[in-house]
Amino acid sequence: MWDVTEEIIDALEIGAGILGTGGGGNPYLGKIEARQHLRAGKSIRVVSLDELPDDTFTTTVGGMGSPTVGIERVGRGDECVRAMRALERHLGRRFTHVIPGEIGGSNAMRPMIVAAQVGVPVIDGDGMGRAFPELQMDTFSIYGVAPTPGTLADPRGHEVVFDKIADPETLERYARAITIQMGGAAGYAFPPMTGEEVRRTAVPGTVTLAVEIGRAVLRARAALANPVDAALSVSGGQRLFHGKIVDVERRLLGGFARGVLQLEGSGGDAGRTLRIDFQNENLIARTNEGDILAVVPDLICLVDADSAEPITTEIVRYGLRVVVLGIPSPEMLKTPRALAVIGPAAFGYRDVPYIPLPGTYGVAD
Amino acid sequence: MWDVTEEIIDALEIGAGILGTGGGGNPYLGKIEARQHLRAGKSIRVVSLDELPDDTFTTTVGGMGSPTVGIERVGRGDECVRAMRALERHLGRRFTHVIPGEIGGSNAMRPMIVAAQVGVPVIDGDGMGRAFPELQMDTFSIYGVAPTPGTLADPRGHEVVFDKIADPETLERYARAITIQMGGAAGYAFPPMTGEEVRRTAVPGTVTLAVEIGRAVLRARAALANPVDAALSVSGGQRLFHGKIVDVERRLLGGFARGVLQLEGSGGDAGRTLRIDFQNENLIARTNEGDILAVVPDLICLVDADSAEPITTEIVRYGLRVVVLGIPSPEMLKTPRALAVIGPAAFGYRDVPYIPLPGTYGVAD
Repeated sequence: MWDVTEEIIDALEIGAGILGTGGGGNPYLGKIEARQHLRAGKSIRVVSLDELPDDTFTTTVGGMGSPTVGIERVGRGDECVRAMRALERHLGRRFTHVIPGEIGGSNAMRPMIVAAQVGVPVIDGDGMGRAFPELQMDTFSIYGVAPTPGTLADPRGHEVVFDKIADPETLERYARAITIQMGGAAGYAFPPMTGEEVRRTAVPGTVTLAVEIGRAVLRARAALANPVDAALSVSGGQRLFHGKIVDVERRLLGGFARGVLQLEGSGGDAGRTLRIDFQNENLIARTNEGDILAVVPDLICLVDADSAEPITTEIVRYGLRVVVLGIPSPEMLKTPRALAVIGPAAFGYRDVPYIPLPGTYGVAD
Repeated sequence: MWDVTEEIIDALEIGAGILGTGGGGNPYLGKIEARQHLRAGKSIRVVSLDELPDDTFTTTVGGMGSPTVGIERVGRGDECVRAMRALERHLGRRFTHVIPGEIGGSNAMRPMIVAAQVGVPVIDGDGMGRAFPELQMDTFSIYGVAPTPGTLADPRGHEVVFDKIADPETLERYARAITIQMGGAAGYAFPPMTGEEVRRTAVPGTVTLAVEIGRAVLRARAALANPVDAALSVSGGQRLFHGKIVDVERRLLGGFARGVLQLEGSGGDAGRTLRIDFQNENLIARTNEGDILAVVPDLICLVDADSAEPITTEIVRYGLRVVVLGIPSPEMLKTPRALAVIGPAAFGYRDVPYIPLPGTYGVAD
């Protein structure tokens, strides 16, 4: 159990950005909001899965929508709380905790803000250990938690409750259709989970991991050491490629930012090129020889070569000098059951086998 | 207060079809379902607005979706009951009555079926006195009943609750988006209304009117009299045109069947032509000289010239010999407040004034 400070929020912004693997939205606006709550005297407590009392009743809270819209449209700031309250009214029961649905990107910050607003602790874990583009791509769904009831709320005060939805893919379709009608961005709360369910299905310790990655980067910058090395030292990752962005193809398609990045190597990678396909998140990194350096669910993260600042799909552009990090996926995402939902084939790479990166998620060599 | 018989269901099918003004979906499948319930010993009671007890708590129930999909896709038959039950659970309160949202088309029959299934009476009235293509086009919304909470349910058991939606146009957009995701057809229940609200905002007596129109037609057929005259004698309507369908332009656009009918006159109308624009429902009837014979909200109804069988937008085709009936709209649809929502301008006819047909809705000359 630990309390969130401004320093921790700053670190979380960076760590969540890196674990976002290009997607998940920018945590910057959420950081500002969380900081305001701390400065106003609100407290945010983080508790580990082991510390959860038996009567724990929790849900994930966050923002749904294309990251591109999320950047441009600032909400009222209470969409997630209202989604959570709507779900509580529907269930006739209050939540004792909140948990991030995805630790990658802006949805790492949302539960912090809700925790400050309503006074419940944040659970140290999430449903992805990274970011993914669709609702059903989380360990809660994959390991059998019913996807509904769940709720959406928008800045105008509108609330929509989904119930008895047979499968998370259908919930994804329904919620995406409503999010588009809500203007492209909404706050969500789903699914309700007991302490037993969340202990069994969450990826543990990911809030701590994101904070530790960010902290390592910030300390290295302050010490004039190498921030990329620092990020690798706590994430369990490795350098995949070092180079320059030479081409960006990006389209908004079906509510997702899809496209391809081309990189030209420098340093030890001089003379090589790398192609990264993304759908909000980076999915596959291949050399010009066709060698696959990493593929989903392993994390493919672009960071600025000097500062280790995460580079998301929305801001990546020609000329940036980057390091491509490969971080092994959490073990819970590598089971056959999980790979059916978030493996290469689930993203259309039907002929690409999943060959895991060496190492362990979040564990330094 | 009166009880529904098989004869009444047969009559309602025809009357609701005529009042559907081309849209509202075909009541035929609903008639078969309602008849099965009656034959199984279920009873359906109809009560007038005057007879409602003070503690009345009611909602409209019906089907949402394009009539074209409604024809092709048969539901489980309990979508409306499940939508109603979901709304009751959301409110923590049981409904004492149901009321048709629109008396025109298939949604005249749905509350009958729900009444048989759950054992509550049907209120003799509705929110349109005819059919309209969108949710917000009803007297409940027009006269200030809050549009939500409301629910949708689909054949797979999925339920969606809409709450705190600021205006009925937004509910229409959200519900339409979900209906499309549900496969194009869903059962709805909304809005909850007290006895005072429904007495103040419903168009009264429209279930009786639809049944009386159908009865008059059936009796005339049996007596070898003129069924079209019979329909006019109880509806307050007049003959606008007599002729043959010579052209049908019809497209499915944004979930609606939109198009234009061309008619060539015969008998007293020989040498004249008529053009009718429709969006699910018939909206405006103009001669080749540009004279407007009738315009929404007045009812423009096509019936077979011999049998007075209603001819809907989905089945209208080249060569049919028809009479175009003009029935004056209920007075509640003629106020400035109502015309802003369901007058000619609301359907895009900005330069067309609403000049009411003579006569009174449902009152014979």
